[in-house]
Amino acid sequence: MGTGIWLVGARGSVAVTSIVGALALRAGLAGPTGCVTELPALRSPALPGYADLVFGGHDVAATPLTKKAEALAAAGVVPPRLVAALLHDLAAVEGDVRPVPTGGRQADVAAALAADLERFRERHGLDRVVVVNVSSTESVPPPHPAHADLAALESAMAVEAGVLPASAMFAFAAFTAGCSYVDFTPSTGARLPALAELAERERLPYAGHDGKTGETLVKSVLAPMFAMRHLVVRTWSGVNLLGGGDGANLAEPAANAAKAASKQRVLGETLGYVPQGGTRIEFVEELGDFKTAWDLVTFSGFLGTPMRMEFTWHGCDSALAAPLVLDLARLTAAAHAAGRTGPLTELAFFFKDPLGAAPHSLTEQWSLLCDFVRQLDADLS
Amino acid sequence: MGTGIWLVGARGSVAVTSIVGALALRAGLAGPTGCVTELPALRSPALPGYADLVFGGHDVAATPLTKKAEALAAAGVVPPRLVAALLHDLAAVEGDVRPVPTGGRQADVAAALAADLERFRERHGLDRVVVVNVSSTESVPPPHPAHADLAALESAMAVEAGVLPASAMFAFAAFTAGCSYVDFTPSTGARLPALAELAERERLPYAGHDGKTGETLVKSVLAPMFAMRHLVVRTWSGVNLLGGGDGANLAEPAANAAKAASKQRVLGETLGYVPQGGTRIEFVEELGDFKTAWDLVTFSGFLGTPMRMEFTWHGCDSALAAPLVLDLARLTAAAHAAGRTGPLTELAFFFKDPLGAAPHSLTEQWSLLCDFVRQLDADLS
Amino acid sequence: MGTGIWLVGARGSVAVTSIVGALALRAGLAGPTGCVTELPALRSPALPGYADLVFGGHDVAATPLTKKAEALAAAGVVPPRLVAALLHDLAAVEGDVRPVPTGGRQADVAAALAADLERFRERHGLDRVVVVNVSSTESVPPPHPAHADLAALESAMAVEAGVLPASAMFAFAAFTAGCSYVDFTPSTGARLPALAELAERERLPYAGHDGKTGETLVKSVLAPMFAMRHLVVRTWSGVNLLGGGDGANLAEPAANAAKAASKQRVLGETLGYVPQGGTRIEFVEELGDFKTAWDLVTFSGFLGTPMRMEFTWHGCDSALAAPLVLDLARLTAAAHAAGRTGPLTELAFFFKDPLGAAPHSLTEQWSLLCDFVRQLDADLS
Amino acid sequence: MGTGIWLVGARGSVAVTSIVGALALRAGLAGPTGCVTELPALRSPALPGYADLVFGGHDVAATPLTKKAEALAAAGVVPPRLVAALLHDLAAVEGDVRPVPTGGRQADVAAALAADLERFRERHGLDRVVVVNVSSTESVPPPHPAHADLAALESAMAVEAGVLPASAMFAFAAFTAGCSYVDFTPSTGARLPALAELAERERLPYAGHDGKTGETLVKSVLAPMFAMRHLVVRTWSGVNLLGGGDGANLAEPAANAAKAASKQRVLGETLGYVPQGGTRIEFVEELGDFKTAWDLVTFSGFLGTPMRMEFTWHGCDSALAAPLVLDLARLTAAAHAAGRTGPLTELAFFFKDPLGAAPHSLTEQWSLLCDFVRQLDADLS
Repeated sequence: MGTGIWLVGARGSVAVTSIVGALALRAGLAGPTGCVTELPALRSPALPGYADLVFGGHDVAATPLTKKAEALAAAGVVPPRLVAALLHDLAAVEGDVRPVPTGGRQADVAAALAADLERFRERHGLDRVVVVNVSSTESVPPPHPAHADLAALESAMAVEAGVLPASAMFAFAAFTAGCSYVDFTPSTGARLPALAELAERERLPYAGHDGKTGETLVKSVLAPMFAMRHLVVRTWSGVNLLGGGDGANLAEPAANAAKAASKQRVLGETLGYVPQGGTRIEFVEELGDFKTAWDLVTFSGFLGTPMRMEFTWHGCDSALAAPLVLDLARLTAAAHAAGRTGPLTELAFFFKDPLGAAPHSLTEQWSLLCDFVRQLDADLS
Repeated sequence: MGTGIWLVGARGSVAVTSIVGALALRAGLAGPTGCVTELPALRSPALPGYADLVFGGHDVAATPLTKKAEALAAAGVVPPRLVAALLHDLAAVEGDVRPVPTGGRQADVAAALAADLERFRERHGLDRVVVVNVSSTESVPPPHPAHADLAALESAMAVEAGVLPASAMFAFAAFTAGCSYVDFTPSTGARLPALAELAERERLPYAGHDGKTGETLVKSVLAPMFAMRHLVVRTWSGVNLLGGGDGANLAEPAANAAKAASKQRVLGETLGYVPQGGTRIEFVEELGDFKTAWDLVTFSGFLGTPMRMEFTWHGCDSALAAPLVLDLARLTAAAHAAGRTGPLTELAFFFKDPLGAAPHSLTEQWSLLCDFVRQLDADLS
Repeated sequence: MGTGIWLVGARGSVAVTSIVGALALRAGLAGPTGCVTELPALRSPALPGYADLVFGGHDVAATPLTKKAEALAAAGVVPPRLVAALLHDLAAVEGDVRPVPTGGRQADVAAALAADLERFRERHGLDRVVVVNVSSTESVPPPHPAHADLAALESAMAVEAGVLPASAMFAFAAFTAGCSYVDFTPSTGARLPALAELAERERLPYAGHDGKTGETLVKSVLAPMFAMRHLVVRTWSGVNLLGGGDGANLAEPAANAAKAASKQRVLGETLGYVPQGGTRIEFVEELGDFKTAWDLVTFSGFLGTPMRMEFTWHGCDSALAAPLVLDLARLTAAAHAAGRTGPLTELAFFFKDPLGAAPHSLTEQWSLLCDFVRQLDADLS
Repeated sequence: MGTGIWLVGARGSVAVTSIVGALALRAGLAGPTGCVTELPALRSPALPGYADLVFGGHDVAATPLTKKAEALAAAGVVPPRLVAALLHDLAAVEGDVRPVPTGGRQADVAAALAADLERFRERHGLDRVVVVNVSSTESVPPPHPAHADLAALESAMAVEAGVLPASAMFAFAAFTAGCSYVDFTPSTGARLPALAELAERERLPYAGHDGKTGETLVKSVLAPMFAMRHLVVRTWSGVNLLGGGDGANLAEPAANAAKAASKQRVLGETLGYVPQGGTRIEFVEELGDFKTAWDLVTFSGFLGTPMRMEFTWHGCDSALAAPLVLDLARLTAAAHAAGRTGPLTELAFFFKDPLGAAPHSLTEQWSLLCDFVRQLDADLS
């Protein structure tokens, strides 16, 4: 009689903002700004209500949720009055946040993760659980032959320690425990043939990758604008300055490369060619939870006339991500309930690097999402 | 066996850039960058080809077209090599640019205008003529009871001098001469009940208002983005700095008001509410034909977190407008040929302040436009 | 054994931020960021210490200081923890904030104002009092023949009601009560020959006009940069978006004109010519106490090559102004103690529109200020 | 009876713009915009006139100067009409541009370079020659024990090939040929103890490093502004997007590091501490000769209130650098004539990374420069 949201990285900024927000919505202390499933076009009886959401998660860190929430309030990410009012409710979630099991063989670790998920579902009598990865971005992992095939993967995990990167371990555990999976990060997650096979075998849906919260969101409407006007984009260069939790990690070349590639994909897909320039991510700790992105676009008009556009986006990543995490969890749970399996390409609206053959223009993604919700409604009746 | 484009304000920057561009396209000296009807999704046999376009127009100014084209080349609006190569072709258009007739009673002036249009059509044996207003923005005219009814209008014009503002005079003359009409400016044009009646009587289509070339174009994709993400826009303030022909005129309070209102309409229509702030137009002569617009958007995210976005657009208005003038003329001529009458709301994609009950989101306008062209194709076969 | 700071507009944002800041400095709860008299180059035993400052003032509003301070804390202007810690100290200032006397003849009103100042000085046994105008900007007042001459002024004030604008009334009252006067606004203040005569007669110094807190501060270093590099500034256009107390007032055309002229003066003075463009002030209430200014500068380089620079300044006016109010009060009190009389042109560093023949380049103003403080030191020993 | 300017990198954008500009000034075809030695405060009879400048140089490239000048005209760096008018004069310079000698032992190469310089001086009967390095930025070279001592250097060069990097080879050759030396790049140049010894022995002056043309110029006035206002700069991050000749080279990590360090030095020097953040240089070929720099500065005001400033600089590096090259050559030649030897710290105004214990605030550098020119005047009389 409830839906579980299991957050990988449960003590991080995005997770705690999501939990505070859901508790505030449930308590009537805040409105649904930023929650796209609360727009008239997307409201649906097929989606679980905020009051029916139950939170749990894994984290390697040990900071109490209440402490993290207070830090977020001090940083201007969430209103101090909300945190003060919800301290008791937050503390109640604490018991469902588990340390990440460690150990030698990945089969054992995966089993321990899955056991945590099953206990969570049973303890709260939940209809179903969605696992959402909001932990730090991983480096691109080395390829492994066992990634291509489920049987090979299970054999390898039974003897080896490093077959799957962490994000894929959580996807594996989710699927074996009968849970759907959403990857809000650019990490590997469920994007391996062996895991697609597992999701299919267990009849589970999954979604990803890499929540589209700021600069890429803007790109996904500006690039189609240039395309629809037949203007030729010559260069598109950007820089992201951020100081929050994921920043230090993203500044490392390997993770940076993963993220930056994810951020430029929209240009090639919507313009039909790749303009010069790239996106750079810089970690500046002092900037804290707010991120400033600056983009320069140079383009040619009629008869080749050169022109330019710049934009600066100053946003709070956690505040932008958290309502989308709730949206994704509600939508994926509803898809699970409706018997949908495999990659949910219809959720491309939410991602920088959507699964499957999804469009990259935000408005086309929006249409797809509206149709998806209407179908959930239809399935319900 | 040809289509006429009659430009009101034929010696102005937009008109001359349009003519130079069409001649360059016809001669194979330039590509169709900026021409949306040359995108794969909109290419259509129903549209007249560039080689079949014949130009003429009215203007109160006397500067030769070649001289104006050279000035545009010096200002960086069009490439000097194109103007040099097309001097002869431009000079050939000169004979079809007429002074604006003047006189006492508006009925007489309108008849003289219409006679110019008819002579142009006959001289070149044209199938049809589209009148496109690209002259300077007018002040909002005082209301007149004769605007409401065609019979009253014709009676008033027979005795009075100031019943219709200039832009509406051109629409009246176009309709009486059997020509379709496009208003690329925020002026009155065909937007009077009496003129709608006339267009209907003569079975003619018309389109408008106010070509969407820069800042408003960007707004028409960013505002839907905020709406689709359920973010609350608190303020949207902008300034436009421009030095070109229309700038001095727009800086006058009355014209400024007309234009600024036209530029903010998109926000209310796409957001569902009107955020605080306004758009200011400033004339800075030294800036010449390039316009710089700066916009600041402040918005609230989840749980009220305040965020902001800025953009600067540095564009050449004439280079942005000219290909759209050609697109509009081709589309309106094709609509005329297909028997379409009345306001062409399907051309909302091109306008800041579209006629009829058109959507304001650029992508919805794009879909409407694609459907419109597909219908023209269907009518053709 | 103390120095009084009498704030005209004592319940406004700038005044209350100044008081909270001085109390925090006295209590050791905050550091002197923003206080230029605490830089090594300007520290001086001639200046009164923060612990020796006593606050009072006039205001037409009645909001308690503690309430205003809490509102400033909620708006992010001052830290909530400071306001909480200083509530008791703030309440103690309340008794020295007086309503503005009203009445028919200005002589009577001025006498009542002066009496308030004298009572304040006596009650606290102060060595001297500096009156600082931080109230809203006035419209430019109509000229009056009595402004030119002190005797004529006194005669006119004895019978008339509207001879002096409010800011000049406070200057008049300050001088008759033996107090120095600082005008932090662009209002008239002491800038009338009759008041200069009065200050001279009473042997009092005064300073002004219009605290240089944001966009003009930036201009005062960028304009000299262009001049020193022999680059030709073609246009300099700016817009100021603000929602705070003074914004609604400044948006009125008359006050706007006063302020905007004050903001452009620096360009003519440092460049030697006035580039095209202007500064526009727009009131957008929702923006609150933070102001966003955007400036576009276009310039020519070697052989005429066109280039451009833009900047955006996002500052909190009250937080920028308050430490300067304390600096100015300390410096003016020290000048008074040292026997300086008349306009203090050496304080040009602080003002958009400095009194006397002051340089407009910030660095030259800085040198002048350093010399001034060194002279105060020398006078002391 | 003339002064030679020998440009290392004579066929590059900066060199050719400098030559075109000097020829245009001599012919009265252009004014001295951008030439600081033509400002009233710096005009001096001690400086050689433009008509007395004779150009030559080394380059590894072979593009004719006229061809390069035409390319610069097409790119908008210099006016096409100037290049057309000066083609003959430019071709006359061609004979004095020499290929860079190559070979095994550096002593031989240096001798060949010096011989080129001596022949140039004799051929034109020049009073003296200034060698100005405007070639591409080098990577930071590995240290070599012979850099510390002139005798050791001469011994090593007699047998080895890679003792000195190219820029230092040119400085060595300049000094042995009796020429002064200016380094407009961040390369090593004369910055080695052995070369300082050589300059001292030959009684020659030299200047450097790294011409301050854009973003760093702006920093050198903004950083002192924050310091003078006692505002605490928390972060200062920047990105430079450029497509011109030096861009591809600077994008390589080693050269980038040299340049980026040079660009941040001004902050530590003028603020007294180093804020977080860095400067990134990105090569985007399509941007061509114009460079766009964007900087974000976050700072704290009174009581810690967080604020921010952004600026975008869109400049043409060659057009900014060329007049400074002429200024530096004229000033260094005059210093040479006046018997000045060693590093000219008084020319810090021109450099990102000035030699010696120079101030980093632009205005202080300006004062130093004015004093320097006044001293040259005094020496003359």
